[in-house]
Amino acid sequence: MGANEKFFPGLDGVIAAETKISFLDTVQSEIVIQGYDLIKLSQSKEYLDIVHLLLEERLPDSAEKATLEQKLKSEYEIPSELLNIFKHLPENTHPMDGLRTGISALAGYDSNLDERSLSVNKNRAYQLLGKVPNIVANSYRVIQKLEPIRSNESLSYSANFFYMITGRIPTPLEEKIFDRSLVLYSEHEMPNSTFTARVIASTQSDLYGALTGAVASLKGNLHGGANEAVMYMLNEAGNVEKFEELLETKLFKKEKIMGFGHRVYMKKMDPRALMMKQALKELCDLKGDHTLYEMCEAGERIMEREKGIYPNLDYYAAPVYWMLGIPIPLYTPIFFSARTVGLSAHVIEQHSNNRLFRPRVHYTGERRVFHSTTGEL
Amino acid sequence: MGANEKFFPGLDGVIAAETKISFLDTVQSEIVIQGYDLIKLSQSKEYLDIVHLLLEERLPDSAEKATLEQKLKSEYEIPSELLNIFKHLPENTHPMDGLRTGISALAGYDSNLDERSLSVNKNRAYQLLGKVPNIVANSYRVIQKLEPIRSNESLSYSANFFYMITGRIPTPLEEKIFDRSLVLYSEHEMPNSTFTARVIASTQSDLYGALTGAVASLKGNLHGGANEAVMYMLNEAGNVEKFEELLETKLFKKEKIMGFGHRVYMKKMDPRALMMKQALKELCDLKGDHTLYEMCEAGERIMEREKGIYPNLDYYAAPVYWMLGIPIPLYTPIFFSARTVGLSAHVIEQHSNNRLFRPRVHYTGERRVFHSTTGEL
Repeated sequence: MGANEKFFPGLDGVIAAETKISFLDTVQSEIVIQGYDLIKLSQSKEYLDIVHLLLEERLPDSAEKATLEQKLKSEYEIPSELLNIFKHLPENTHPMDGLRTGISALAGYDSNLDERSLSVNKNRAYQLLGKVPNIVANSYRVIQKLEPIRSNESLSYSANFFYMITGRIPTPLEEKIFDRSLVLYSEHEMPNSTFTARVIASTQSDLYGALTGAVASLKGNLHGGANEAVMYMLNEAGNVEKFEELLETKLFKKEKIMGFGHRVYMKKMDPRALMMKQALKELCDLKGDHTLYEMCEAGERIMEREKGIYPNLDYYAAPVYWMLGIPIPLYTPIFFSARTVGLSAHVIEQHSNNRLFRPRVHYTGERRVFHSTTGEL
Repeated sequence: MGANEKFFPGLDGVIAAETKISFLDTVQSEIVIQGYDLIKLSQSKEYLDIVHLLLEERLPDSAEKATLEQKLKSEYEIPSELLNIFKHLPENTHPMDGLRTGISALAGYDSNLDERSLSVNKNRAYQLLGKVPNIVANSYRVIQKLEPIRSNESLSYSANFFYMITGRIPTPLEEKIFDRSLVLYSEHEMPNSTFTARVIASTQSDLYGALTGAVASLKGNLHGGANEAVMYMLNEAGNVEKFEELLETKLFKKEKIMGFGHRVYMKKMDPRALMMKQALKELCDLKGDHTLYEMCEAGERIMEREKGIYPNLDYYAAPVYWMLGIPIPLYTPIFFSARTVGLSAHVIEQHSNNRLFRPRVHYTGERRVFHSTTGEL
């Protein structure tokens, strides 16, 4: 028998791809990235190590990492016409929509657009890794009528990204924490955005198109948009007591509460959330104000008690980004930027061993007869 | 047992959604659209009938159809800033990429962007149905450094679309055939682009994002891009003998030949292709030159004999569009424009009864141990 006898809502539990890139091992509680546990990697490796691991299938030595950093720096600049396009976007354009439009427009500058070979695809991914932070920062700035900001090549990749979105150079602790958030967001098996990218790529469409679709997917509240929703909720409350009240009210009204639960982890806390929780603690210690940390912990307790669900990465990434002084509307674009490498790896893998995604449906409507001769409807 | 024990490459045969919109009934050889057979509908109904059928779930009477046409006409205009954005796109931007960028940018003009209610979603779909032909025509024109063209509201919806892409008002026969091609492209169950749109919409992302992803999907050679590929092949050959040679050579080299085969129809000719074959005959009769028709028939015979596969819609839509004087790079954008209504109906259905798409993977890579303490890689 085939799967065609059963409908799996949301493709829950359905195997949609074979991959060597990553998987969520819920038995051993590991996020396996190219064979390694992401959490272990995140404790001593940086984002560029993960970029190399995902696109070259092994961790780099220090010379390879330096070469990679130079390569990305050489790709930082974006066409000035892209800035002009951002100027023409209406000012209430959502930052994810500005980012989507920017990546979509960038396709026109690729003189090899019809090529799908491994080397061209990989080079395209590196170009995008260089440019996406610039597009994130400057689409947001230009739509807000701010002057564009130029990349600072004397900084590390992550420090430059931080600088471009906040306008200031991070402290070493801030740089470390921001870089770690990028590591944790870099790749995560087959969430909706990665699935979207692979589905699009399977028509032999290009990396730009696949990433454009992935931005659209990640924008949704049930996906990347959750980190922003969490921060608005924390800010609306402002202290532990009011946050508890707010959650209790939402639970009573059966409203969806963002930042909790994950289809795959289910009854366990997302281990990436724990890493960001530690980072939040460090930032609160330094500031000498633990309000946000205590609010988050209180929320965690309520949700465990009332719903038996646990924080996901977005729940703790949001207050970390807040403490780092990052504008809330950029939380999801940053998530996308960090995930560009994982998405690219999946598109490259899809192109290298392709099968068009084309599922079927169960028709639940009625059958009707159309009598064209009489004109009857 | 669940589907999680078996991998279905390309989700072949997997039921990904329940729908009341359409399905391919391969047993009774019907393309069921809201209960009716699309082929029967296409013989006496027009594109706007199908638009009403797909979005209002029933065929319109003549007053309702007139109201619908007025509604779409009132939405023809696009923001002038969109034309400025097209001016800044590099001149070798693919028309599908121009279209994608245009739809992505349009999101910023929607003051209700966070609303997902049925009425707002439907209204958004009508707005897009009004504007997409304009975006298709003018993104193409402006990228080519041509002056933008204005819609002509004295013409029917299809005649105006034809006018905007060719610069001339169609004859009644041309209008009828072009309209019929839009009917045939309007909706077709769950091809890759429709699946892409539903996957994106399932994160609660908006219609613009879902359509942006669908454009990216449809651009691929294994999907909508096929109609353009067919026409380049027919033009490269130029006559029956050379077309036969070209196909034989491609078959010998085991190259993929566009315009043939369809995963769902398999051993039968796509009934939509037959409709377009008849239209091609009519156009060739009128011109008194049957070269293209004879080439297509010869190709049909070779592919049936050598591979046992049959023409799909793209194979006959391409020469029909050629005979209508439509620029080849617009064939896929026209396909998208016609499909906007089907895609919108699917996004609306997804939002009204949502479950996030989030499948799993089979990990085929190795497991590796990372020793962070020693720094060993």
